[in-house]
Amino acid sequence: VTRPILFLSDFGLDDEYVGLCHAVIARVAPEVKVIDLHHGIPPHDVVTGALTLAQAVSYGPKDAVFLAVVDPGVGTGRRGVALQAGDALLVGPDNGVLMPAAAALGGVSSGVELEVGRVVLWSVSDTFHGRDVFAPAAARLAAGADLGEVGEGIDPSELTELGPWSRLEVEEERVSTAVIGVDRFGNVRLGARPEDLKDAGLEADELVLLVAGAPVTGHRVRTYGELEPAAFGVLVDSAGWLAVVRNGDSAAEQLGLRPGDAVELRASGVG
Amino acid sequence: VTRPILFLSDFGLDDEYVGLCHAVIARVAPEVKVIDLHHGIPPHDVVTGALTLAQAVSYGPKDAVFLAVVDPGVGTGRRGVALQAGDALLVGPDNGVLMPAAAALGGVSSGVELEVGRVVLWSVSDTFHGRDVFAPAAARLAAGADLGEVGEGIDPSELTELGPWSRLEVEEERVSTAVIGVDRFGNVRLGARPEDLKDAGLEADELVLLVAGAPVTGHRVRTYGELEPAAFGVLVDSAGWLAVVRNGDSAAEQLGLRPGDAVELRASGVG
Amino acid sequence: VTRPILFLSDFGLDDEYVGLCHAVIARVAPEVKVIDLHHGIPPHDVVTGALTLAQAVSYGPKDAVFLAVVDPGVGTGRRGVALQAGDALLVGPDNGVLMPAAAALGGVSSGVELEVGRVVLWSVSDTFHGRDVFAPAAARLAAGADLGEVGEGIDPSELTELGPWSRLEVEEERVSTAVIGVDRFGNVRLGARPEDLKDAGLEADELVLLVAGAPVTGHRVRTYGELEPAAFGVLVDSAGWLAVVRNGDSAAEQLGLRPGDAVELRASGVG
Repeated sequence: VTRPILFLSDFGLDDEYVGLCHAVIARVAPEVKVIDLHHGIPPHDVVTGALTLAQAVSYGPKDAVFLAVVDPGVGTGRRGVALQAGDALLVGPDNGVLMPAAAALGGVSSGVELEVGRVVLWSVSDTFHGRDVFAPAAARLAAGADLGEVGEGIDPSELTELGPWSRLEVEEERVSTAVIGVDRFGNVRLGARPEDLKDAGLEADELVLLVAGAPVTGHRVRTYGELEPAAFGVLVDSAGWLAVVRNGDSAAEQLGLRPGDAVELRASGVG
Repeated sequence: VTRPILFLSDFGLDDEYVGLCHAVIARVAPEVKVIDLHHGIPPHDVVTGALTLAQAVSYGPKDAVFLAVVDPGVGTGRRGVALQAGDALLVGPDNGVLMPAAAALGGVSSGVELEVGRVVLWSVSDTFHGRDVFAPAAARLAAGADLGEVGEGIDPSELTELGPWSRLEVEEERVSTAVIGVDRFGNVRLGARPEDLKDAGLEADELVLLVAGAPVTGHRVRTYGELEPAAFGVLVDSAGWLAVVRNGDSAAEQLGLRPGDAVELRASGVG
Repeated sequence: VTRPILFLSDFGLDDEYVGLCHAVIARVAPEVKVIDLHHGIPPHDVVTGALTLAQAVSYGPKDAVFLAVVDPGVGTGRRGVALQAGDALLVGPDNGVLMPAAAALGGVSSGVELEVGRVVLWSVSDTFHGRDVFAPAAARLAAGADLGEVGEGIDPSELTELGPWSRLEVEEERVSTAVIGVDRFGNVRLGARPEDLKDAGLEADELVLLVAGAPVTGHRVRTYGELEPAAFGVLVDSAGWLAVVRNGDSAAEQLGLRPGDAVELRASGVG
């Protein structure tokens, strides 16, 4: 019995990096299925990679091997690891990228540090551990290998946690946060959830969004269709985050917002 | 025996939407194969999605489940449906996106309205029925479920037809239409077919293309290679549409043409 | 027993061309696995396609069918071929795109010219042999067909070789070459290998890069992490080429370099 591999990276699709990892997996484990979760994580953005991977826990196969390669530390001393969490396995660099997914799976029950000599089929490049270490390790595990066959046991409590990522501040009638994503429809995902609005006492149908200091009115809606043309809305998006949207138009473009930009939410009466 | 899923959407590859649908299908039906037909349909462009899906009927597996998610009405009252047409099944919103493919398959022989309670594994997002309704329904059907297991029977004659999409007008020595696509080579697909030129009596080797009122000479050719450098040609593209091309260069860029732009074809003698 | 198909093209992902080839393969050979190596080869760039395909030989399944469609001569008299090299098969146009991969596999042992009548399922478009000839031929071979079932034997010595592509010149203390690729991290791949530096006697820790005549200092490093911020480095990239990099930043953007641009490497003392 094989496990499917759920593969996420910051490689993009503009070159052959993702394809080479697929080729390696097919050489090591011809019968394993690989699902591309997403390869457009911004280069070296460990936080976005980690949050995107964690989101997939609720939807993907419960016995998957989660392979996540967002690895600004490649070629330095950072460890590569393979972890067990729930019924799933996770493979990637020990830089925090696996940790929210592991938490969503019930926490790490055991882990190993990947040992190059056990998993690698050729000489290892200094810059492309995705192809040379992580992909073959994931393939071996997906084909049925035990963790002990790809590395030496480590103490899960010593794994690197994901650094602080949210600028979320919740106060009386005020939620300050940042844009954590913009999709191709121009919907602006904020690093805050509906319960944060509740905690701040911001439960009116209208909110004021402060974007670069300028106020914009946003209506609380459930779907795009509830908005008048050219009106801005705030809804709970498909991953459970608050998102600023515009009906049939790009909210991001209209507001000039990009990931990392600060956004403040206030009650409509406040200037 | 499972069916392959042929998946088309307007999700793009800039975020994890497509990957999450794949993850859902692998959870519901681990053994099913998913073929990505295209995810770069312009956002909310039901017509382009429908025509692209229909084109695949001639080339894909005859027993496929066609999964098409171009769904500007998500979260409103529009129905989700699953249809039988020929040996194939089709799953998507009831907004016309499935209808040209169903027609190319011989017409809808039976159908159901998807019932969320029968197909969904978790609480349903208001904005992402691709992940929460259509992908799991397609997975269930691909794994062998009957239509009746995912919804309640409907009258095929009450399905929403695809709205009028072509600006095609064929007159004596004159065909007016619009650009319906531009590919990465800069070839400009028009919403007209060679038989429309014939009907208009435009069968000379040279045509005049009127683009924003300005005349450009185009030569009827079978392949790019028949064109002189810097000359424009009109050929029948791989999907059977008329296309404006330029040898080794982008016709779209040279002519400033984008999807939706009007183009008129006339006999070369006409100013 | 089936073979996996390793698929490379210049189709891009902005339209449905790749998806239609997948659909065709699934119709002809439902049980065959297709691995997308890369579809972002610059349009009509046979050299980049050939080098990218050859790179995959070391990593992919040894019995793969390599399907490469970079085909500026489609619709002209150029032949389509299927070749045996080592345990692998290769399918594509006879324009050199398959030859470096075939060489890396040990050379072509036998080959056939594809005969449309033996492989094609429908009328053949003049412009899309990827869908109409190469994909079905690769599918037939991957499903177990012999070369003789898809074409007539040819003399391997008469195959078209890949044209000259490298501007590499190695002299005393001087290596002249060109950019052969830029990845999304902005790393600049040069058409030279570390042994060329050695042959030129350029083995100091510092090099001078001449870019459009202007000198830039580059440090020989093994990984990005060895570089000071804002310093340029020269390392051996994951495919074995010399690459110009910048720590945490795009070297290509900083230096204004694009594929095809000339770069000269000299000893640091030389102006």
